[in-house]
Amino acid sequence: MTTATISETNTFNSLPPADSRARVSQFMKQIQDEICAGLTELDGVETFREDSWEREEGGGGRSRVIREGDIFEQGGVNFSEVWGHHLPPSILNQRPEAAGHQFYATGTSMVLHPRNPYIPTIHLNYRYFEAGPVWWFGGGIDLTPYYPFAEDAKQFHSVLKEACDRHHPEYYPTFKLWCDEYFYLKHRQETRGVGGIFFDYQDGSGLLYRGPDAAGPAAILSNQVGVLPSRNWEELFTFVQDCGRAFLPAYTPIVQRRRTTEYSDRERNFQLYRRGRYVEFNLVYDRGTIFGLQTNGRTESILMSLPPLVRWEYGYQPEANTPEAKLTEVFLKPQDWVNWTPGQLAI
Amino acid sequence: MTTATISETNTFNSLPPADSRARVSQFMKQIQDEICAGLTELDGVETFREDSWEREEGGGGRSRVIREGDIFEQGGVNFSEVWGHHLPPSILNQRPEAAGHQFYATGTSMVLHPRNPYIPTIHLNYRYFEAGPVWWFGGGIDLTPYYPFAEDAKQFHSVLKEACDRHHPEYYPTFKLWCDEYFYLKHRQETRGVGGIFFDYQDGSGLLYRGPDAAGPAAILSNQVGVLPSRNWEELFTFVQDCGRAFLPAYTPIVQRRRTTEYSDRERNFQLYRRGRYVEFNLVYDRGTIFGLQTNGRTESILMSLPPLVRWEYGYQPEANTPEAKLTEVFLKPQDWVNWTPGQLAI
Repeated sequence: MTTATISETNTFNSLPPADSRARVSQFMKQIQDEICAGLTELDGVETFREDSWEREEGGGGRSRVIREGDIFEQGGVNFSEVWGHHLPPSILNQRPEAAGHQFYATGTSMVLHPRNPYIPTIHLNYRYFEAGPVWWFGGGIDLTPYYPFAEDAKQFHSVLKEACDRHHPEYYPTFKLWCDEYFYLKHRQETRGVGGIFFDYQDGSGLLYRGPDAAGPAAILSNQVGVLPSRNWEELFTFVQDCGRAFLPAYTPIVQRRRTTEYSDRERNFQLYRRGRYVEFNLVYDRGTIFGLQTNGRTESILMSLPPLVRWEYGYQPEANTPEAKLTEVFLKPQDWVNWTPGQLAI
Repeated sequence: MTTATISETNTFNSLPPADSRARVSQFMKQIQDEICAGLTELDGVETFREDSWEREEGGGGRSRVIREGDIFEQGGVNFSEVWGHHLPPSILNQRPEAAGHQFYATGTSMVLHPRNPYIPTIHLNYRYFEAGPVWWFGGGIDLTPYYPFAEDAKQFHSVLKEACDRHHPEYYPTFKLWCDEYFYLKHRQETRGVGGIFFDYQDGSGLLYRGPDAAGPAAILSNQVGVLPSRNWEELFTFVQDCGRAFLPAYTPIVQRRRTTEYSDRERNFQLYRRGRYVEFNLVYDRGTIFGLQTNGRTESILMSLPPLVRWEYGYQPEANTPEAKLTEVFLKPQDWVNWTPGQLAI
């Protein structure tokens, strides 16, 4: 890796510091620790079980899983740090500059499936790559309710917006739309949930958005590409740290609000049915899952995101004017949640 | 489509007859009818519900589903006939001669998920394509037991071998291996079940096998490619008809043998867990599913193959020397089932 190549490629002057890998992987482990501690306290009954693992080609990770808790029916919080000879095609398509180079990747990712259908499923993933002349941060967080509340979506998005706004006013609006685009099930014409933020390929250049994603509706963002002054590595790393630390304040108040809501078989059956969409997204579209499977990652850790119990039912249609119908009609479309006020959206 | 182009591309003289599309789609509907009738009789309690549907770009189909039967917890038997401007990339990679041409495709596909864990899940799909200068048949049938019996696998394979042998002695050995290769979960290092037969791109040329499949272990077949004298369209169509008609004799005796076997929560839980592998295969690797989703097929019909209830459990390992352990240790590896004799394979 040479200075000349980097600045040619990224057309700006920020190189990662010499200890970039150690610092980012250190942070990724720390955020895994902090979030596991917060979730254990929240659950109150179960704790996380840890498996450490090594990867043959290079690197390894620590996977933590919680099962049969008071809140969490199943959930996993992963840390990994891997390296190898070359990135898989799914990434090289988007970052051709990395072709022919060894790569380094570290990240944390988690999915929590609560038992109560009134508590949403949550996903977070942040990751950092270096490969030859290029480096970048990516990731995001998104919320998938079954029986949704607009005030929960608003609160969730507001916490994320606050974290983003501390760094740049263009971040939240761009990464919110990117999230709606990325977590989109084309074959169902639904977003996965009420979204959150998502970004990829943040390399410090002024280019905020790189897409459109094959997984998303064509170019939601193509006319809205923010081009900023270049940012340096330190700025982006601080931004990602703030995003990671927004997890607990964004999610725990929702769990607290909904944990005592009673439910019957009707809600449980609908939750199991909707979990099928989660499986469909993760196995058909999710970039992290595909990266993991293509790079001989640890299968059990990659597929930890899948729900403990799932239903599929041919031709299911919710009855009109039910909460189940409202989920797809209102909540699984991109909405401006931060500015939602009671009475809007016919909720 | 001109004679010259066809014979140049396939290097043999067989053109489809003028009524090829009508004849094949007629057969695909007929086999749907015959198999639904056979399965309804077998189930004895439930019948199939039919939905007819049309596809915007061209064509349509009829989907039939059975639910909550005596034998079948859920299952679908589809017929479809579609056409459009161009084939998706997943097929053009393998058949570049079809690029830039309109296509026609018709087929039948089915997956049946029995409730009793002693009865295997079954899948069948046969399909026919025409696109510019090329045409081909593809498809297969494979059996996925949860609590397997070698005699069932042997009987299943023997019926398929008989159907194949009536047409060419190379068919069964080649298509049996291709099936082991195709229905392979790379990330689990397991075959999906005890296999059956699978073939694709049968265009009448002498080339029996085209691979290796991305989904399979590298080139099981690469040193075993059969090259036959050219076959004509009529010969291949007759072969595919015989394969379709082998479904009931291959599967129904197994159902009859196992339908009264009692089971407890242990077997049921293991079945639900193993159904997760079925979902993983269909959403990550299956060519038919990916074709359907890429060509804006009818999602509910494409995903009819997914099981009604599924479990995922992080880090599950069966205890040593149990039937659950034997499934992966012995049955989910390629085996010569036709020649199995009691005492072999430590079963």
